[in-house]
Amino acid sequence: MIDYDAASPEVRAVFDDIRAVRKTDVINNFWKALAHDPVTLRRTWESIKEVMRPGALDALTKEMIYVAVSVTNQCGYCIASHTASAEKAGMTSEMFGELMAVVGMANETNRLASGWQVEVDEHFRR
Amino acid sequence: MIDYDAASPEVRAVFDDIRAVRKTDVINNFWKALAHDPVTLRRTWESIKEVMRPGALDALTKEMIYVAVSVTNQCGYCIASHTASAEKAGMTSEMFGELMAVVGMANETNRLASGWQVEVDEHFRR
Amino acid sequence: MIDYDAASPEVRAVFDDIRAVRKTDVINNFWKALAHDPVTLRRTWESIKEVMRPGALDALTKEMIYVAVSVTNQCGYCIASHTASAEKAGMTSEMFGELMAVVGMANETNRLASGWQVEVDEHFRR
Amino acid sequence: MIDYDAASPEVRAVFDDIRAVRKTDVINNFWKALAHDPVTLRRTWESIKEVMRPGALDALTKEMIYVAVSVTNQCGYCIASHTASAEKAGMTSEMFGELMAVVGMANETNRLASGWQVEVDEHFRR
Amino acid sequence: MIDYDAASPEVRAVFDDIRAVRKTDVINNFWKALAHDPVTLRRTWESIKEVMRPGALDALTKEMIYVAVSVTNQCGYCIASHTASAEKAGMTSEMFGELMAVVGMANETNRLASGWQVEVDEHFRR
Amino acid sequence: MIDYDAASPEVRAVFDDIRAVRKTDVINNFWKALAHDPVTLRRTWESIKEVMRPGALDALTKEMIYVAVSVTNQCGYCIASHTASAEKAGMTSEMFGELMAVVGMANETNRLASGWQVEVDEHFRR
Repeated sequence: MIDYDAASPEVRAVFDDIRAVRKTDVINNFWKALAHDPVTLRRTWESIKEVMRPGALDALTKEMIYVAVSVTNQCGYCIASHTASAEKAGMTSEMFGELMAVVGMANETNRLASGWQVEVDEHFRR
Repeated sequence: MIDYDAASPEVRAVFDDIRAVRKTDVINNFWKALAHDPVTLRRTWESIKEVMRPGALDALTKEMIYVAVSVTNQCGYCIASHTASAEKAGMTSEMFGELMAVVGMANETNRLASGWQVEVDEHFRR
Repeated sequence: MIDYDAASPEVRAVFDDIRAVRKTDVINNFWKALAHDPVTLRRTWESIKEVMRPGALDALTKEMIYVAVSVTNQCGYCIASHTASAEKAGMTSEMFGELMAVVGMANETNRLASGWQVEVDEHFRR
Repeated sequence: MIDYDAASPEVRAVFDDIRAVRKTDVINNFWKALAHDPVTLRRTWESIKEVMRPGALDALTKEMIYVAVSVTNQCGYCIASHTASAEKAGMTSEMFGELMAVVGMANETNRLASGWQVEVDEHFRR
Repeated sequence: MIDYDAASPEVRAVFDDIRAVRKTDVINNFWKALAHDPVTLRRTWESIKEVMRPGALDALTKEMIYVAVSVTNQCGYCIASHTASAEKAGMTSEMFGELMAVVGMANETNRLASGWQVEVDEHFRR
Repeated sequence: MIDYDAASPEVRAVFDDIRAVRKTDVINNFWKALAHDPVTLRRTWESIKEVMRPGALDALTKEMIYVAVSVTNQCGYCIASHTASAEKAGMTSEMFGELMAVVGMANETNRLASGWQVEVDEHFRR
């Protein structure tokens, strides 16, 4: 992992922006690892910044969706980091419980639908 | 698939409850297929009803989480049906666009985190 | 897809063995597609034959495990073909219902375990 | 994680039932974690109890299906806990070897079928 | 889907760039669908353009990696479109056969490694 | 895990071949674990040997495809071991960065394609 002090000017510019946008001095390991590939570091950060900015959906909803995907994919790092982000954005333990319950049910019924070879209803087609 | 008219009393009771809770006469193909296994039909419906009931999270947020999981798992039936449910619960096309953008980014960074073998930061551990 | 009549001697030899082992004249589309790559066709058939042969687990149990994996991966072709094979090996509709119920629950609790970041119990470690 | 002594009466009732049904004093970490969300704890336990009860499929077959799904999803916790449960239900090391062999082959051929874009055979359609 | 003639100037600018870079008049359905969300359309196209540009890896290798991921995720649209792109970039049918063979084996051994709970060798750790 | 000295003649024969083909004395944990099931050990090794042999695709390309699949499936063991193999086959850190970038993008657009329910273009059909 590449720390701020060891980073090239190109990488430092991204780290500085992360700190400014997130209002924190901490650079997470994810970004320190990506720093080995400055092009991907910059593109990924710019994309994340654009995608996670509050818009039609607020920051908390977006973080919970991030957790839902990460749990479905069983990505340990992303579950840990985005659960923390969601909590910072206001997720209570009741919300987390309901989030997990929905994620669990969706993963269950996704397989019931496929396994039973259910055809898409006419009124759901586009 | 088992239609209402061909259903056993046990299955009809579930179908009646689906109609009452959802305020519609339509029974989706998913439930008509599950009707071949009345025990799973009942348990799945009771669980869905409990899980999707507005609580700490509202109905729209829950439907969008359902879509996020279904898209991640690439379940065609569930994407079609839950996108429709989310729209019925108030999801605008702007919201859908942002939902897909977050789901896409999360699926991308889940792999970057694993592929780069990023270690969980101390401050994310429990 | 490559039909028997259009197949090379190398491919025909595999097709003949499939027919002999499965006691049927039908060659499924899966094998007809793989016939474009005779090396993979042969290796895959030899492996399947060895793996699916009754041993410590009987043929029906093996086919149901195949269905469980295919449903979890949402592979339409494999769900259709291995559900048919399992039925041929004796799977009743009650068994299929229970199989789907277990597959659904496992997919649900897999995510609850990961999402809640549950640590492996000492007595489960090896 | 919430231990028995720190649990609310509602959670204790579930823990007591787990102990009674499983004929053991041990409450696994999975349930201790879910205890933070008593509604999901109760629903998940009641569902698991109903689904895993011997019926058209015996307890061992059900546990092996659970392992097959957990391995396909790469859920570390579930692989460890359900492999242990399957062994308790009578899975020998020969059975485990064959189970893994089938899970491996199914994961391989699922991708060969999708990658080669194999169309479902007429005789497999419903 | 939004065709070129019905597109806003913002969307047309992206469509024009796709045509210029890919040296074709055809705009695939993927981009026509994303056109409903111009921000995601632009970001996704800019990212794809940067990522798929020949660099340390050539265009063909990158397209084959795209196919490998799409097959693993069982994404029908992406398998069809990126197999076509890979062929255009020079993939022969022998190469495709070997690509599928590797993807199949990797999906198999991924599960054998997890299912057998294999610990990472000391010499593989970073 | 079964070490060379504790292995049966049948297992030793496979271990010897692994050492000869890979020109190393090291037997990885993966093979030592599979050694509990000599039939699967032999079949998996013979398959890997055939599939990974340079042919229409060279050894490095095949190892990078292996990594792409393992990262998509989030298999920790396989990511660690095949990243090491790819490096041994000549993968530079620039190549690894681009490999991860493609894997990330493919995982993202796979979901955009499914979530937006994009229909396969006529010119991609076979």
